[in-house]
Amino acid sequence: MTIQTATAPLDRLKAILAEIADLRHTESVLDWDARVSMPHAGARSRADAASTLTRLAHERFVSDEVAELLDDLDDGAGDTVEGALLRVTRREWERSRRIPSELVGEMAQANGIAVAAWDDAKAASDFTSFRPHLERQLELKHRYIECFPEAEAPYDALLEDYEEGMTSAQVSAVFARLKPELVRLIERHREDPVDDALLRGPFPVASQQAACRRILEAFGFRDENWRIDETPHPFASKPGAGDIRLTTRTDEKDLNSLFSTMHEFGHGIYEFDIDPAFARTPLGGGASSAIHESQSRTWENLVGRSRGFWHWFYPELRAFFPSALRRVGEEEFVDAVNAIRPGAIRGDADEVTYGLHIILRFELELELLAGSVVPADLPEIWNARMKEYLGVDVPNDARGVLQDMHWSIGLIGYFPTYQLGNVISVQIWDRAREDLPDVEEQFARGEFTPLREWLTEHVYRYGGMYPPRELLQRVTGSDLDPEPYLAYLHAKFE
Amino acid sequence: MTIQTATAPLDRLKAILAEIADLRHTESVLDWDARVSMPHAGARSRADAASTLTRLAHERFVSDEVAELLDDLDDGAGDTVEGALLRVTRREWERSRRIPSELVGEMAQANGIAVAAWDDAKAASDFTSFRPHLERQLELKHRYIECFPEAEAPYDALLEDYEEGMTSAQVSAVFARLKPELVRLIERHREDPVDDALLRGPFPVASQQAACRRILEAFGFRDENWRIDETPHPFASKPGAGDIRLTTRTDEKDLNSLFSTMHEFGHGIYEFDIDPAFARTPLGGGASSAIHESQSRTWENLVGRSRGFWHWFYPELRAFFPSALRRVGEEEFVDAVNAIRPGAIRGDADEVTYGLHIILRFELELELLAGSVVPADLPEIWNARMKEYLGVDVPNDARGVLQDMHWSIGLIGYFPTYQLGNVISVQIWDRAREDLPDVEEQFARGEFTPLREWLTEHVYRYGGMYPPRELLQRVTGSDLDPEPYLAYLHAKFE
Repeated sequence: MTIQTATAPLDRLKAILAEIADLRHTESVLDWDARVSMPHAGARSRADAASTLTRLAHERFVSDEVAELLDDLDDGAGDTVEGALLRVTRREWERSRRIPSELVGEMAQANGIAVAAWDDAKAASDFTSFRPHLERQLELKHRYIECFPEAEAPYDALLEDYEEGMTSAQVSAVFARLKPELVRLIERHREDPVDDALLRGPFPVASQQAACRRILEAFGFRDENWRIDETPHPFASKPGAGDIRLTTRTDEKDLNSLFSTMHEFGHGIYEFDIDPAFARTPLGGGASSAIHESQSRTWENLVGRSRGFWHWFYPELRAFFPSALRRVGEEEFVDAVNAIRPGAIRGDADEVTYGLHIILRFELELELLAGSVVPADLPEIWNARMKEYLGVDVPNDARGVLQDMHWSIGLIGYFPTYQLGNVISVQIWDRAREDLPDVEEQFARGEFTPLREWLTEHVYRYGGMYPPRELLQRVTGSDLDPEPYLAYLHAKFE
Repeated sequence: MTIQTATAPLDRLKAILAEIADLRHTESVLDWDARVSMPHAGARSRADAASTLTRLAHERFVSDEVAELLDDLDDGAGDTVEGALLRVTRREWERSRRIPSELVGEMAQANGIAVAAWDDAKAASDFTSFRPHLERQLELKHRYIECFPEAEAPYDALLEDYEEGMTSAQVSAVFARLKPELVRLIERHREDPVDDALLRGPFPVASQQAACRRILEAFGFRDENWRIDETPHPFASKPGAGDIRLTTRTDEKDLNSLFSTMHEFGHGIYEFDIDPAFARTPLGGGASSAIHESQSRTWENLVGRSRGFWHWFYPELRAFFPSALRRVGEEEFVDAVNAIRPGAIRGDADEVTYGLHIILRFELELELLAGSVVPADLPEIWNARMKEYLGVDVPNDARGVLQDMHWSIGLIGYFPTYQLGNVISVQIWDRAREDLPDVEEQFARGEFTPLREWLTEHVYRYGGMYPPRELLQRVTGSDLDPEPYLAYLHAKFE
């Protein structure tokens, strides 16, 4: 009898991947902490720590040992979990090993420093103080892009990190189809605006927080596994299994916190409902940024702005804000939260203007990378295009080019996935409604479990098992397609 | 001309030590997060992440590269920062390399799991459910102790991690001197108890939090660098430079939160005032646990229970709690917060009974390690000795053997440093008062900066530069000596 003492290569690989997952868990906690909890003066020391951690995780992953294990292992059957694990690991390893660990560390450190600078710059509405940090980020991105000389366009090297298999040419084609339609919808609306004055409150912050919790609990939020905090820029994260964290931003002048909370819930529930067997593996997260955004937009818009949802929740909302909503009927309220209201802030935008906010950012990112726009010119160009696309006068940089934190943390190439997410959300939604024809009546009774279970069954549980385009094909039978989204907008807003 | 391209060994060593410090920073954030923020269900995945991180930090530190660098470097002049850096690094390296990285990882993981179990067990007052976790911790401690066969006693191998150069025999000698004196003071008090009924509130929680902030701000707490949260077991931590975190526990039935907040402030200010040049080096923390505790006890007791302090703060406190304190005069209040009140809970104990709580734990730890007490017998023995030493009937395990989290996170050998801290606090205090004869009058005017500056000048700024006994010698001209502490207690309580 021979006793096999050596660890099988797959088990050894899984053990290393579990360690990498543990380090990613830790990075996620550092990031959450920096954004939610850390005293301001801790930023520089935190940037050092995050940089070291990211660099060590990278070194560990691109090690010769992983190379040898991947060499030793077959591809596995394509449609098995093991096959998916190897596919995802190989893809990430091929990409990661191109990037020097020093650059990985420098990027993590630059993010920590630039986000603190962005925070100050936004508070002072002073783009000039943020400019050097953006220039530094662009310089790092160019070094990063150089690691992928085969990319069709420089932008594609960045986009691939968020959206596997997507190119900037494909994004441009989708956006070219959307842009004139969105502009036309906004123009049509200008002649017949919905009155949204009733959405200006005041809505006491504590009551907004209580209303958000009420909605979250109906959706499936439980204190055992979830938490929600306030941050200037809302986000969701999952450090590890059983630990889902949302943030929101509450302002007593509006009810945007409700929608941003439902948005982040969508990210959270996607992560929460991934097959538990994928924990501590590269399959343990969502399929891509656009698939993730499709789910946040589903819960924010397709659920959270639906007539059914408000038929259930409006009476409760009114009880939370008796004085502000006393004279506002349900119909009137639903019309107001669905109104097209061109404004300066992406995060507060309605479903139609939102796309133009994204298209603006995508265009600017392409131009910044090409050098046809330099950071110094950004505020002027930003403001001019906001006027051109949305008819909006940008009052200052804080509500203009400094409004989003993304560029400060090196997220260049990420923005388009938001709008792709909108497109995909409707593709999946149309399919869900075939199986759940009375989903809106369920919402009207406060029942969200059937939708959640359908989404878990068809999307969430697979985590990162399939590339995003393949997942979309499996769920909807179609590739990325802007037409269902346009049909949805036309039906809703015309 | 020769160009030196290789990094000098000292610079290379410093770079590795900075990485280790970054990983410790990260461990500290993981720990803080688990205790303050993490949803309960995240505990198991967090235990994995913490275990991996701790193991990687250990592997990195005990690497051959560090061994070679330490070999290449001279000892450096003893009293320079560089000499201290090498001394501390060598000592830690010599100790760390004895311990297998696997054991380090297992210990970190056991801590994460056991602390969650302790939390549940304490809530249910059910020692039985915690017992297997304590048994596991003891088993791990025995494996750890085996790595140090030269230790005079098994306990010494653990104690050395918290208190360099201290042995259990020395602790036993100090405690043998203290124990009968403390018992005598308590017995004397029994015949003439101070009325402390006036300290039973109710004291609304929000007002306690506001009062704590008022005190902290007078002491030097600033939002830019500090934060304070609520946890069941108060603690202080410094993930990195500029980031000091305290926690407290507020109960409307008493004012203990004020004292526990001042206690944690003492830990925080010590860390905050360490020479900034020591950041990301092994000198960047306090000299030892006992020196640390001496400072928390200084701010809690020597400052926070002094007549001067209350002469300043009592009028404000009364304004925070107008109904509970309406009929209570300043003298009466100061007598009450200084009363000897034997009770079940260490964290709420007065200055005299506190020492017996510690002595009980030290004795039990020695016995648990020797096997003369087994975990199953702990509740019974605990309760019997509480009756014997303090005359206290322990109502249940939650207020008995389960009250402290220490054993759950593997802190065996740590408790005695609390009482050594009390002893040292008075040694340093006596020296401080020679230079600051009117310190109590300063407190009475709300001035705490002179004391803080004296402590920073003589103690805090040195961080980990000197071994604790040497630091004590430098500050006070004396080794560890229980007599000043006993003189203080006798003067105060007789």
